[in-house]
Amino acid sequence: MKAEIIAVGTELLLGQIVNTNAQFLSRELAGMGIDVYYQTVVGDNLSRLKEALQLSSARADIVILSGGLGPTQDDLTKEAVAEYLGTKLHYDRLALDKLERFFQDRSKPMTENNKRQALAIDGGTPLDNETGLAVGNAVSKDGRHYIMLPGPPKELIPMFQQEVKPWLLQHVLTDELPIYSKMLKFAGIGESALDDRLTDLITGQSDPTIALYAKDGEVTVRISTKADSELKAMEKLDQLQAEIEAIVPDHMYASQDVPIEQVIVDLMADQGLTLSAAESCTGGLVMETLTSIPGSATMLRGGVVCYTNEMKHKLVNVPLHLLEGENAAGAVSAETAEVLCEQIRMITDSDFGLSITGVAGPGYAERKPIGLVYIGIAERGKKTEVHELHIKGNRETIRVRATKALLYRLWRRLKATEQ
Amino acid sequence: MKAEIIAVGTELLLGQIVNTNAQFLSRELAGMGIDVYYQTVVGDNLSRLKEALQLSSARADIVILSGGLGPTQDDLTKEAVAEYLGTKLHYDRLALDKLERFFQDRSKPMTENNKRQALAIDGGTPLDNETGLAVGNAVSKDGRHYIMLPGPPKELIPMFQQEVKPWLLQHVLTDELPIYSKMLKFAGIGESALDDRLTDLITGQSDPTIALYAKDGEVTVRISTKADSELKAMEKLDQLQAEIEAIVPDHMYASQDVPIEQVIVDLMADQGLTLSAAESCTGGLVMETLTSIPGSATMLRGGVVCYTNEMKHKLVNVPLHLLEGENAAGAVSAETAEVLCEQIRMITDSDFGLSITGVAGPGYAERKPIGLVYIGIAERGKKTEVHELHIKGNRETIRVRATKALLYRLWRRLKATEQ
Repeated sequence: MKAEIIAVGTELLLGQIVNTNAQFLSRELAGMGIDVYYQTVVGDNLSRLKEALQLSSARADIVILSGGLGPTQDDLTKEAVAEYLGTKLHYDRLALDKLERFFQDRSKPMTENNKRQALAIDGGTPLDNETGLAVGNAVSKDGRHYIMLPGPPKELIPMFQQEVKPWLLQHVLTDELPIYSKMLKFAGIGESALDDRLTDLITGQSDPTIALYAKDGEVTVRISTKADSELKAMEKLDQLQAEIEAIVPDHMYASQDVPIEQVIVDLMADQGLTLSAAESCTGGLVMETLTSIPGSATMLRGGVVCYTNEMKHKLVNVPLHLLEGENAAGAVSAETAEVLCEQIRMITDSDFGLSITGVAGPGYAERKPIGLVYIGIAERGKKTEVHELHIKGNRETIRVRATKALLYRLWRRLKATEQ
Repeated sequence: MKAEIIAVGTELLLGQIVNTNAQFLSRELAGMGIDVYYQTVVGDNLSRLKEALQLSSARADIVILSGGLGPTQDDLTKEAVAEYLGTKLHYDRLALDKLERFFQDRSKPMTENNKRQALAIDGGTPLDNETGLAVGNAVSKDGRHYIMLPGPPKELIPMFQQEVKPWLLQHVLTDELPIYSKMLKFAGIGESALDDRLTDLITGQSDPTIALYAKDGEVTVRISTKADSELKAMEKLDQLQAEIEAIVPDHMYASQDVPIEQVIVDLMADQGLTLSAAESCTGGLVMETLTSIPGSATMLRGGVVCYTNEMKHKLVNVPLHLLEGENAAGAVSAETAEVLCEQIRMITDSDFGLSITGVAGPGYAERKPIGLVYIGIAERGKKTEVHELHIKGNRETIRVRATKALLYRLWRRLKATEQ
């Protein structure tokens, strides 16, 4: 079963808004085992819209259109579908009632153009708009199915969930095997390195399928299969997961789509562990990343951003002789990273103390190269670990990669403790 | 002049990522006076990619492809364009050198698949990738122009600005009147409020054109005009800018596309002023945002993330009686915000001290509602200001909006001091 998405709206073609509807619809369709081979964006133009419909109809079984159901004259989606299918439009009684009530409640006259939002295609199914006024439509002809949804995500999402999914299951997906997926998340390894190590598996594999993608210093491996039961699907997926883990041990931090900071917060909260951090070049990014996770309040005690040497000394007790002077190790050094994480742990009385100090650029510091970063992890009653990183990239990349590297090391340490 | 955008990537069709590249490219092309009638998304599939190319070539003068330049076997964009145009690929010497250096610097062997990133189309122009390894390409044939860009936005955006724009101006837009734009940046006001106040101007205006967009708590107003000289264009744009500023005073912080933190860092560095912060619910986001700006090292002394009451007391000297007890104001209060910014300023001996304390959710705290946030600004020898915010949205929205609100207030204060 193949579907295409046509998003309608000149504001998309002008780049005024981003097409989140296509993402949402694609993800939902993939989850239902429906393949999406093309997404198209077309403006509020009747002839181009009909051309797009013709093209999609030739390639797909299901065509989902978003946008162009509103009251203005450039909202043309239903007209285009009706003209393309050679059918007519009528006003849907329920939708029209809703519109009339809406304007009555506000003691405003309903202008004629507003009635356009109640238009429905002859022979189709109107789709209720719980959060808006424009009624959706679903219509089938010659084995092709057309679904028209409103453009605003806050109307499109509930309409898809409550109206379109049941309609598709009842009218279209009567014979299909559902698709099941797992998202395996990796840290501490790049996309191409992972691709390289999994290359034999990827090339030799057709069911389940394997897909890699990278984002923000993490790599996701999605494995998917079709099966007539979740149990059978999971058996296949779990076996492939075990094969992947055997090839790339120590890097898979989750088998669902969560960031590594989520896993860390969960692991630490479960064990009642607390954390603090002293950050120089990342300026708070480590703590900010952890704070973005709900529930981090129980494990993140706090910490310090010590951008200058004076602050490293004053707020985190780094001895001045370590920071300044002819033969000093300097702020960007393994020694300073070690003192920073140990001191912040002690000052805040946390179980773990983290530190990052490095040169994020654009200028260099202490005659040390841009991208040289030291990360430290101190743990109550345990030996402190410090790692030297050499990160290529601009200021932002260096800061993000350093943060992710530290979180990866922390995750490994927490896993080792757990076992 | 017509252009189309083809975004390549199965991850887009699976809804794993949102197509922000299409938005960015559409906006940039609109800014250059180039019409975009269609955007297409196609998967990592050679034959469908070639079909998409054929279709776009029949409809447009310029085809811009994003994605599919990476090292893996499903990165096929350059192959597809070469096959479609009937030309060959070669390894670009400079891109290959860069790849070899990259792996040498890391003392890692360069695997064969990585070389794919250096592929270039015979007879085309390689486009330097400042922030990544995959070289871009621009090639013309039979009056059609094809531009291949990498998928990651942090590579695509600088490549478009630095390589594609000049190439288009030199090779494609030779007869057109150049378009000149100014980006006016607003903070402390929402998109619809700004749209409302500028509505008469927008409706009555055809040259220069006015377009609004919102992102991350800032609103951008782009004003554009075509002219045969920059001087003539700027005369028109400056006049419109003055009209806009007269309608909406106190909110326009820049007349170029920079974030407000950039303006703050520049203003403070110019005046030799220093800053520190004490952050609770934002967990370091304020400091992290400022640190992202090169040059912030001279003005940001450091600060504290004090997530727990204990840390507010221990690290920033907030009296316990303010935080705990039956009749205490509590951590989320104007009083605590005031003490936090004043204390962190004194502890770090900075010119300015900032504070944020609030309820970011998902749970509420101290029986106070989610979205209630207090922000404070202390200044050496001046009166402290505290603002109460009520922010609607999820945890992330609340944290980002609170940060932007604090930066907006700081910018206003710096402007007032400057004058």
